[in-house]
Amino acid sequence: MSTEIELGVTADLHVHLRDGPMMELVTPTVRDGGCSIVYIMPNLSPPITTLDRVVKYKQDLQKLAPKTTFLMSFYLSKDLTPELIREAAKVQAIQGVKCYPAGVTTNSAAGVDPNDFSAFYPVFKAMEECNLILNLHGEKPSTHDCAEGDEIHVLNAESKFLPALEKLHADFPNLKIVLEHCTTKDAIDAVEKINAGITSAADIRVAASITAHHLFLTIDDWAGHPINFCKPVAKLPLDKKALVRAAVSGKPYFFFGSDSAPHPLSAKARHVGVCAGVYTQSHALSYVAEVFEQENKLDQLKPFVSDFGRAFYGLDDANKLIVNHDKCFLVRKNIKVPETIGEGELVVAPFRAGETLKWSTEWRS
Amino acid sequence: MSTEIELGVTADLHVHLRDGPMMELVTPTVRDGGCSIVYIMPNLSPPITTLDRVVKYKQDLQKLAPKTTFLMSFYLSKDLTPELIREAAKVQAIQGVKCYPAGVTTNSAAGVDPNDFSAFYPVFKAMEECNLILNLHGEKPSTHDCAEGDEIHVLNAESKFLPALEKLHADFPNLKIVLEHCTTKDAIDAVEKINAGITSAADIRVAASITAHHLFLTIDDWAGHPINFCKPVAKLPLDKKALVRAAVSGKPYFFFGSDSAPHPLSAKARHVGVCAGVYTQSHALSYVAEVFEQENKLDQLKPFVSDFGRAFYGLDDANKLIVNHDKCFLVRKNIKVPETIGEGELVVAPFRAGETLKWSTEWRS
Repeated sequence: MSTEIELGVTADLHVHLRDGPMMELVTPTVRDGGCSIVYIMPNLSPPITTLDRVVKYKQDLQKLAPKTTFLMSFYLSKDLTPELIREAAKVQAIQGVKCYPAGVTTNSAAGVDPNDFSAFYPVFKAMEECNLILNLHGEKPSTHDCAEGDEIHVLNAESKFLPALEKLHADFPNLKIVLEHCTTKDAIDAVEKINAGITSAADIRVAASITAHHLFLTIDDWAGHPINFCKPVAKLPLDKKALVRAAVSGKPYFFFGSDSAPHPLSAKARHVGVCAGVYTQSHALSYVAEVFEQENKLDQLKPFVSDFGRAFYGLDDANKLIVNHDKCFLVRKNIKVPETIGEGELVVAPFRAGETLKWSTEWRS
Repeated sequence: MSTEIELGVTADLHVHLRDGPMMELVTPTVRDGGCSIVYIMPNLSPPITTLDRVVKYKQDLQKLAPKTTFLMSFYLSKDLTPELIREAAKVQAIQGVKCYPAGVTTNSAAGVDPNDFSAFYPVFKAMEECNLILNLHGEKPSTHDCAEGDEIHVLNAESKFLPALEKLHADFPNLKIVLEHCTTKDAIDAVEKINAGITSAADIRVAASITAHHLFLTIDDWAGHPINFCKPVAKLPLDKKALVRAAVSGKPYFFFGSDSAPHPLSAKARHVGVCAGVYTQSHALSYVAEVFEQENKLDQLKPFVSDFGRAFYGLDDANKLIVNHDKCFLVRKNIKVPETIGEGELVVAPFRAGETLKWSTEWRS
């Protein structure tokens, strides 16, 4: 058995680093967790919708982690115009735009109605022309106000969203779209279907990101364990198995995006109104490696956590956005996940707190 | 619109009153919530499996609530023998035996393997002969260790149990069985099917109890809100609708059992290991009345919360077990559910804390 594996300049293409003291706590842990390039979600409060704010946010992050490459995004809202999109793309201030359906997760109140994206078609057109990526939180909001059997709830919210994904792809066939943090066999099947017949990775227009925690969790793991509650919620065992198969498949339209989403422990240990999100950043690749090893597919880890995501985002080694070219190595060495990180009022419990993982990560220049 | 409704000598046929300080706190709230007769669950730690303990437990409860009728049960385990069953039945120390599958809920570690009840068949035979009731917690334990698609998880655990219910009924056709706190359309359909063709209530052998909270909750209500987390978990909207239809149906094999299950707030506001259970006792009938009114079926409330359960348990007015014959009246008067009851370390948050309910209950002799 190999005792180390070179993963190259790794990429985690879905990351929440927050702002203020939480940002200061978690931003340095990106590198601890084995990730070199990260794609930053814009759901601050208020959400990031201006050039000034995205530039300032990136500067703040860069100061906290000089060796980490931060790719930035706007929050899709009526504040965005095609002109702003073109301007932001021209100066490479953003690499994409994140779309949140209103009300489905943390700081998504300013999000859009996923039943009708047409108001944003001029923005999508500009994004398509500028080669920006549309990052979809693929859930329909819950509703019981409909015919019996048609209700939408946390368990079918993603499956119910998939026709909207298909329509967007049909209407903007050159727009690059990522179905983020997918959680269902239905989603995997939909992305497979869209990519059927594509023989060159350069032709991929619709991809899916897969988190670390959704490779482990099912509904039983968050029922009674709010630390594992996230949106989209982890689904059924057959869904998890489909995610694992997709992650290790070697198919270039499935790649890693941790959706690491830290909340103070006080926002998780509540009897009502638990915040949605699982914090995985500090041990991101160690978690993923456990699953790949269990599937006897460690040879597919580098493609999943480095090559495929970077290719989809157009991040070859020569790309000027990459600030550091140190390589990440997976090393066979036990690492214990701490019960918490941080101190005082700002304490965060990592995923699988207290457990021992089999693989650590190291950086070599 | 009527402003008061006589509910008679009401019955809540599934109640957790715990022991120690929690028992002292919640036992008096049985009457506050509008219930006269209650059937007491035996899942203390250790579980109740002896005549001495069940007699002592009933005495303790009776002291705390002299006007409440307590019906008692044993916990099905290998400690029970046919002789003990016959002895307990003869002195009317118990009215039934509760069966917990091992590991599915609070204090169920001593429970049984629901894949094979055969070890308990001599006990069931004695129960059938003594006209004792078998109260089933109808869930299979979760397992992923099986063919893909056959996994058992909190969402299908009840549906997967139903064949075991059907087999028990086939093997003991005269044994009275209650499928407790049923949560799925599958369960409702199974109980309907078993009762198809029965024209006299006296012939009913398999019934189902329905809680107050499952008439309100679906998966979205406990995702992120541990206060609403219970076992069996609340399921999908179509399941809730089936439960509501069954409760208001006027069919005598569906009756009220609150499964009120108090836990200290500190056991609900946790990031891991939240205790399963919703506390509804203090406002039990006010909750149920809201649903019946919404369905325009207040005329079916008395059958559901008094007549059907009492008939199944053989509790006519002349039954000597009934310690008090005050009648409960539902009165159209707003009542606010407190944020918590209790004080100090022993604080319990009731279901729908802080909300205002439209119906209060009063007792009249």
